[in-house]
Amino acid sequence: MNAEIVAVGTELLLGQIANTNGAYLAQKLAGIGINVYYQTVVGDNPKRLEAVFKTAQNRSDLVILIGGLGPTKDDLTKQVVAHALGEDLVTDEDALAKITAFQEQSGRLNTPNNQLQALKLAHADTLPNATGFAVGDLYRDPDGADVVLLPGPPSEFTVMVDQQLMPRLMAKGTNQGVIFSKVMRFIGIGESELVTNLGDLIDAQTNPTIAPYAKVGEVTLRITATAKTQAEAEDKVNGMVEDVLERDRQYFYGYGDDNSLAQVVVHQLIDAQLTVTAAESLTAGEFQSTLGDVPGVSAVFPGGFVTYANEAKVSLLSIPQHIVDDFGVVSEETAVWMAQQAKLKLATDVAVSFTGVAGPDKLEGQPAGTVWIGIAFKDQPAEAHLYHFANGRAQIRRSSVLTGLDLIRQKLTTD
Amino acid sequence: MNAEIVAVGTELLLGQIANTNGAYLAQKLAGIGINVYYQTVVGDNPKRLEAVFKTAQNRSDLVILIGGLGPTKDDLTKQVVAHALGEDLVTDEDALAKITAFQEQSGRLNTPNNQLQALKLAHADTLPNATGFAVGDLYRDPDGADVVLLPGPPSEFTVMVDQQLMPRLMAKGTNQGVIFSKVMRFIGIGESELVTNLGDLIDAQTNPTIAPYAKVGEVTLRITATAKTQAEAEDKVNGMVEDVLERDRQYFYGYGDDNSLAQVVVHQLIDAQLTVTAAESLTAGEFQSTLGDVPGVSAVFPGGFVTYANEAKVSLLSIPQHIVDDFGVVSEETAVWMAQQAKLKLATDVAVSFTGVAGPDKLEGQPAGTVWIGIAFKDQPAEAHLYHFANGRAQIRRSSVLTGLDLIRQKLTTD
Repeated sequence: MNAEIVAVGTELLLGQIANTNGAYLAQKLAGIGINVYYQTVVGDNPKRLEAVFKTAQNRSDLVILIGGLGPTKDDLTKQVVAHALGEDLVTDEDALAKITAFQEQSGRLNTPNNQLQALKLAHADTLPNATGFAVGDLYRDPDGADVVLLPGPPSEFTVMVDQQLMPRLMAKGTNQGVIFSKVMRFIGIGESELVTNLGDLIDAQTNPTIAPYAKVGEVTLRITATAKTQAEAEDKVNGMVEDVLERDRQYFYGYGDDNSLAQVVVHQLIDAQLTVTAAESLTAGEFQSTLGDVPGVSAVFPGGFVTYANEAKVSLLSIPQHIVDDFGVVSEETAVWMAQQAKLKLATDVAVSFTGVAGPDKLEGQPAGTVWIGIAFKDQPAEAHLYHFANGRAQIRRSSVLTGLDLIRQKLTTD
Repeated sequence: MNAEIVAVGTELLLGQIANTNGAYLAQKLAGIGINVYYQTVVGDNPKRLEAVFKTAQNRSDLVILIGGLGPTKDDLTKQVVAHALGEDLVTDEDALAKITAFQEQSGRLNTPNNQLQALKLAHADTLPNATGFAVGDLYRDPDGADVVLLPGPPSEFTVMVDQQLMPRLMAKGTNQGVIFSKVMRFIGIGESELVTNLGDLIDAQTNPTIAPYAKVGEVTLRITATAKTQAEAEDKVNGMVEDVLERDRQYFYGYGDDNSLAQVVVHQLIDAQLTVTAAESLTAGEFQSTLGDVPGVSAVFPGGFVTYANEAKVSLLSIPQHIVDDFGVVSEETAVWMAQQAKLKLATDVAVSFTGVAGPDKLEGQPAGTVWIGIAFKDQPAEAHLYHFANGRAQIRRSSVLTGLDLIRQKLTTD
């Protein structure tokens, strides 16, 4: 099955934003064995969009259009595609009800243009929008390529791809049979090291295929097999999963695209009935906020401390002033004290602490990326570990948060 | 003059890298008044590349191909374009001498494939490569579109665009004028309401154009004008900016693609020498973490509280138990107390508090998205406001954070 991606938007065409949606989707499609042969960007111009769409429908089996589903006048993808296909646009009642309910609740004006986002191609399946209002479409064309319409804002686009589009495409399978894939997630190992460990498996890959992907602070492998039956495809994938685990089990933390280290660790804590808190300096609340992303975390997370300035470390955590003065704020001793005191103050079973240099400037003569992470786990003596992260303020903080989660995971695994 | 960009490379097509070169070049062309109508990505496949090239040459005045000029087997852009144009490939002697000299100096093998990088279209101008070996081409086609070939590695590509291509395009007198644009950022108003407020301006738009774009919790407008001179283009844009501000000034918070509400508010606090803290329940540290994203925030942000559970509100903030018991945790009173007590405990000038229902489940009978945000500002009495956010846990929390920042912005503006 050959797919083609058409991204719609003058802001893309003029280079004001890069086409990251196209890259995201192409990777996902490659992961389930759908080849992408062309990607096109076209502006908010109905004539040129229709010409591009017709060319795509003639040369590909699946045409995926991204963007132009919003409520404004320059959002015209649905209208153009409906015209080209000879389809009517009809209102999806669930989507309309969601828009109306939001407008009533928020007291915002019930402007008619907002309701345009509930329109869909008459004979398409609706792809619900979990994080926005514009619905997507999956249209099976009996005469030409199948057509998919997706919203442009990445926060809506990625969720719709992962939760709506990919399951439907995989359920349909390809001409060659059933596709099955599993995503394995790793923490604490770099992409190049993981790929080196698995070098012979990757060199020999045909079916299943192994696709590594580096994210901030973690690496995923997508293992994909095609076979005549679902059971056969699953067997192939699971065999490869075992081979991978044999080499890199200690870095593996879970399966799935929608999974995250925070989810895994929070559920481990819930299962073990252990409560957690944190004292955060350079991460400034990002660790706790990451815990807060996980529904149900309130069972194990009462709250915690953001101690950005030195005086807050002393006043909120009652750390002796001389510890900070003698050892410095970016030190093993301060990290250990922060974890210990946070655990004590909120009477939790586990506490993690973060102190270091987010950058761009040095602190206490230490370069950006120098981070001490402390952990106080049950009645074990608190400890702290030194890390050196890179690639700027945001990635230094993100890597710190993931490493703090991983310290808890390791303690729970060996406990 | 209408241009078209064709990026060549399987790694782009599969989404392993995003097409940032295309965005870079499109911006540069827009800046000298060359319209880009299409951008295409195609893999290292000679048949599909030739088809894409011919389509482009038929519908555009200028076709710019990026990538596929290197020494390896999958670099075939020059060969395909030469074939399509009926041109010979000849060796550029300067480029060959540079390759040979480097190989002798570095002691590397003088492999013949390296010399392929010195090939050019017989009737093209060579675009020398200051930071690599593969030369570019500028080919003036008497019968069709002009053709430009550029190398793919960004370190070679950007230098060749800036130093070789742009001066030649401008010298040719293709310059129909200057393009200038400004991004305006809004908070507290939805895209559809903003577009409705500006309906007549948008309906009448020709030059400048107005392009709205919705992000999580905020909306941007890009206002773009073309004119003979830079000054004239800026005047047009600034005139439209004034018209927009006249209607929606209270929602406008700043200019620029790289800007954010957190940056604006942190810099306003630094300028006003006012310190800030927070007490966060449903946002679980995300507000403080967002402050922490801004370099320099340590001047005004000592730290703060994550009070996820009720007992943490009582123990960390010393809120009387009966307040939470009598009014509920999702209440105006609790939000006011949280802001007041956080301000008092850390002796700051400003404190913001967040309490509400992140979802997915109801809390105290109130639906997900119900959020009270409190603010204690200088010596004013603390106050709290009720909001209803939508679109799932992550967006409810994100919208809460942005609204908290906006409450500070409004206080600072009217202070």
